[in-house]
Amino acid sequence: MATTKGKNLFTPGPLNTSRGVKEAMQVDLSSRDQQFMSCVTYIRQTLLDIAQVTSEEYTVVPLQGSGTFCVEAVLQTTSPRVGAKVLVLSNGAYGCRMVTMCECARVDVDVQSFPEDQPLLLSKVEEVLASGEQWTTVAMVHCETSSGVVNPVEAVGRLVRLHQPKAAYLVDAMSSFGVIPVNMRAAGVDYLVSSANKCLEGVPGFGYAICRKEHLLSCKGNCRVLSLDLAGQYLTLEATGQFRFTPPTHSMLAFTVALREYIEAGGLTARAARYQENRVILVDGMKKLGYTQLVPDRHASPVITAFHYPKHPQFVFKEFFNKLVEKGQVIYPGKVTIADCFRVGNIGQLFPDDMRNLLFCMEEVMKEMGLPVPLP
Amino acid sequence: MATTKGKNLFTPGPLNTSRGVKEAMQVDLSSRDQQFMSCVTYIRQTLLDIAQVTSEEYTVVPLQGSGTFCVEAVLQTTSPRVGAKVLVLSNGAYGCRMVTMCECARVDVDVQSFPEDQPLLLSKVEEVLASGEQWTTVAMVHCETSSGVVNPVEAVGRLVRLHQPKAAYLVDAMSSFGVIPVNMRAAGVDYLVSSANKCLEGVPGFGYAICRKEHLLSCKGNCRVLSLDLAGQYLTLEATGQFRFTPPTHSMLAFTVALREYIEAGGLTARAARYQENRVILVDGMKKLGYTQLVPDRHASPVITAFHYPKHPQFVFKEFFNKLVEKGQVIYPGKVTIADCFRVGNIGQLFPDDMRNLLFCMEEVMKEMGLPVPLP
Ligand SMILES: Cc1ncc(COP(=O)(O)O)c(C=O)c1O
Ligand SMILES: Cc1ncc(COP(=O)(O)O)c(C=O)c1O
Repeated sequence: MATTKGKNLFTPGPLNTSRGVKEAMQVDLSSRDQQFMSCVTYIRQTLLDIAQVTSEEYTVVPLQGSGTFCVEAVLQTTSPRVGAKVLVLSNGAYGCRMVTMCECARVDVDVQSFPEDQPLLLSKVEEVLASGEQWTTVAMVHCETSSGVVNPVEAVGRLVRLHQPKAAYLVDAMSSFGVIPVNMRAAGVDYLVSSANKCLEGVPGFGYAICRKEHLLSCKGNCRVLSLDLAGQYLTLEATGQFRFTPPTHSMLAFTVALREYIEAGGLTARAARYQENRVILVDGMKKLGYTQLVPDRHASPVITAFHYPKHPQFVFKEFFNKLVEKGQVIYPGKVTIADCFRVGNIGQLFPDDMRNLLFCMEEVMKEMGLPVPLP
Repeated sequence: MATTKGKNLFTPGPLNTSRGVKEAMQVDLSSRDQQFMSCVTYIRQTLLDIAQVTSEEYTVVPLQGSGTFCVEAVLQTTSPRVGAKVLVLSNGAYGCRMVTMCECARVDVDVQSFPEDQPLLLSKVEEVLASGEQWTTVAMVHCETSSGVVNPVEAVGRLVRLHQPKAAYLVDAMSSFGVIPVNMRAAGVDYLVSSANKCLEGVPGFGYAICRKEHLLSCKGNCRVLSLDLAGQYLTLEATGQFRFTPPTHSMLAFTVALREYIEAGGLTARAARYQENRVILVDGMKKLGYTQLVPDRHASPVITAFHYPKHPQFVFKEFFNKLVEKGQVIYPGKVTIADCFRVGNIGQLFPDDMRNLLFCMEEVMKEMGLPVPLP
């Protein structure tokens, strides 16, 4: 069972981090310190390694702020001042958010929407991509954390490359990177975004984009926001080893340790196996308690699972949530529009015992609330 | 002498933080946790208290990212989609950065520049403000950290209110807030920006704007960037107590402790006195070593001091810097265009003994480099 934690966070970030990750924040370093700059180099190189791409073709650009800032940075940076047109393939809240970003920037945006409980439908994606319209950026989400659905990044990528050879292909892999592999080259992904506090189990403070260098360098001067200019950030990092603006030094020291622990524990395969084991225990147990999943197993991620609210008059989510918190278990509210759901994440320093303990607490809470166990 | 630190950081952030501040990062909290949300409330209220303004008129909006992100958020949020025109009163790098932000956003911007080693000249400021031109935002920097010059926020404010009654008055008080007081109401300041890792001695991860509510509410829909929409951030915080996007939970827990320690140690008066004492020791000692200040005493801040490079063939800044680092002393490069300088900060967990120790190390390094002591 994980140590040094207050509550168990079954949330998709911030999440429980290891003791070593938190201890790494016990030192103050200047952003120009050699040790800090080595950390930045280590982080950038290790993320390339995890993505299985080379530094000849790709580069990692970390950016201060939450993951959203980094997604928006890619959209802003890949959209030329004149003639930008973005296509978002969306089946959930994080797809919708990319649309909002384009609207904010007054960048032309088309949306192809899909049901929230299913992956993007490839036949429809192909139809849109082959419609004759040209986009400067095509964007989608890998694991829609709002539902837990995993979208087919590689299959969509092949269609993007076929029908939209000039478009930047952006994948929001916030909650999947490090656990659900993507062959970026084969999928033709130009930008893949994630953040420190997801499957790599760091603390919040920055996001990062794995960028195809050639494309990134074609984007100089596009960005309408100095802070979010990914090309500017890249050029300064390369030239000086430093951030343009104060980096979140402590978060980055923590992330260095998080990456080391990830690799020492066996990398992607091991991390994915642990989360998958967590998921199996969770889903089996929830089934026994009478809960049903929003997303069928074959489309579901090992990251997070959405469960329908029990159809019972005694079930009030707020009460359910609070009673679980009292027992030190923090689950997550729903975020789809088509059904009343709550979510349970498997990521962070959570282990099979933690999942079993959550199930035990859930059963107790159900009894306290006067719900039948199992649900009918 | 400060404890739990590796090196002494004579840098204007990231800086040395107390042991308690760093220890506060040893827990992982969900961003919806009651304890975390109370921290956010505490931070917002305490910053209002430090600014000596009431929650009827003002509000504090924290924003993920570095301080630059928050300055840019104010510029973006206060600039209407049509007809925006910003005036920047600039005497250094941080004033120039605001100009760059406007240029990035293609917002009309006028700059009135002043020499880097002097404060804004009020007669010239008045001439510009009274020229008949109208601006939507007038922006300036309180303490230009590039030189250490303190600018007259209140006097400029009175002129802004007199000649530009409709303009938003933005003050970048990044490196001065909590130490050099500003009467925001008397000065008519609508937005005052600072960040966690400056005089309040937290760790990096977010900035904040102290905003006049009425103005902020008039800015809905202006921002061209979702992540930096200060009005959106404010409305969500008020409605839900939560951030729109993942907050830097650990930095904010650290900041909560930093604020408590600030208040327990005696608030602004005490913090300013400590930094001033640091400055006096530093400046006296540097004088004895033969260094001269860029900025005359009467315009200088207790925050940071720029010193001219010694005019001696044996002085190479990089070597000087590195040798000091070897002794655990981290000073800061220069950032003005008019002279070759380096800078020494007094902020963070630095105490008189630390300043004396720095002076001692500097003398040693000078000898090692073959420089005369004192300099001629
Ligand atoms: C798929 C996806 N995209 C974007 C985000 C936004 O990240 P952040 O909350 O760090 O801004 C999240 C957060 O959970 C996410 O899961
Ligand atoms: C006056 C001033 N403005 C803006 C900034 C930028 O802040 P950050 O580096 O956190 O983006 C600084 C940083 O030192 C500053 O001193």
